[in-house]
Amino acid sequence: MIDFWYEFASNYSFLAAERVSSAAALRGVAVRWRPFLLGPILKAQGYTAPPFEQFSVKGRYAWRDTERWCERLGLPFVKPDPFPQNGVPAARIALALPEEARPDFSRAIYRAQFCEGRAIHDEKLLRDAVLAAGSEYETALETAKTDLVKDALRKATAEAESLGIFGAPTFVTSDGELFWGNDRLEEALDWERSRA
Amino acid sequence: MIDFWYEFASNYSFLAAERVSSAAALRGVAVRWRPFLLGPILKAQGYTAPPFEQFSVKGRYAWRDTERWCERLGLPFVKPDPFPQNGVPAARIALALPEEARPDFSRAIYRAQFCEGRAIHDEKLLRDAVLAAGSEYETALETAKTDLVKDALRKATAEAESLGIFGAPTFVTSDGELFWGNDRLEEALDWERSRA
Repeated sequence: MIDFWYEFASNYSFLAAERVSSAAALRGVAVRWRPFLLGPILKAQGYTAPPFEQFSVKGRYAWRDTERWCERLGLPFVKPDPFPQNGVPAARIALALPEEARPDFSRAIYRAQFCEGRAIHDEKLLRDAVLAAGSEYETALETAKTDLVKDALRKATAEAESLGIFGAPTFVTSDGELFWGNDRLEEALDWERSRA
Repeated sequence: MIDFWYEFASNYSFLAAERVSSAAALRGVAVRWRPFLLGPILKAQGYTAPPFEQFSVKGRYAWRDTERWCERLGLPFVKPDPFPQNGVPAARIALALPEEARPDFSRAIYRAQFCEGRAIHDEKLLRDAVLAAGSEYETALETAKTDLVKDALRKATAEAESLGIFGAPTFVTSDGELFWGNDRLEEALDWERSRA
């Protein structure tokens, strides 16, 4: 099994979320979806602004690159405005949902954000995404507001940081190898299949 | 034809240099080797130290990642000390050499640096690399010291910057698409083959 660490506001996490389930199934590898918050980690590592803003030339490339990837995946692409979006409510709801509902919920959030340009803290969007994942919104929302879930997100973020994660998505194999980036998905899965 | 923009001190440029010729030949795509200096570009884009130093958690990952890649390529790996090395003399000699000698010269420099841990401004190493590329050292060194070559390196770096390059290696297709990173080599070649 690999851990798929993702941040709801991250464009490369979106691309990986689109691809991870089928790529993993193809190789017989199980995937655990691990939402976390990248912002606090980046801040602790010395970033003074969102990376694509602090390094704007790289940022421009990343958007063009995302657009090309969407084309390849047959998806429309809309750059979120503002970017990055506030991924906290979505991450809390993701952790409040039963684990098996997390992939569908997360993909719904990502598509709304990067294919339609919607704000991901919007309550109607969150509701639709929970429903798309076959869960009950009121229950998920109530659970998401509990200290238990808030704390689970803080703990997940601390765990990501302690693993040496510095970007999203990051795949972590069962023997602790990190693979950073949507473009390393296949490498992570192959590593897991051959060694773990 | 794609342009392969590389920096002599860059570990991911090294990995790409090992792979680019065969991957391109396989797809019938020609490659132009374009050495440049990444340091001045990074400085202009806001870095205050070499990236792996400024963002040390990412740096640690990058070394482990390079080590894994070397394993896959069947190459020993030695982390250069200090890093980054001074790539200016090698870049000037690369530009002084006939274009067809550049790949062998560059690969020799990279292997000495990342497989043996040698200093890449070392004169004996530069000499051996020129000889490995079938050229004459004295001529290459004399040419490398001319204003023409010094200026050619400055101009190459300025061109890289104007293209929007922010890291090495970067592949630029004939229709102007940028693909950043050793792990995007195949994507760049496929793009070139299918569209250009």
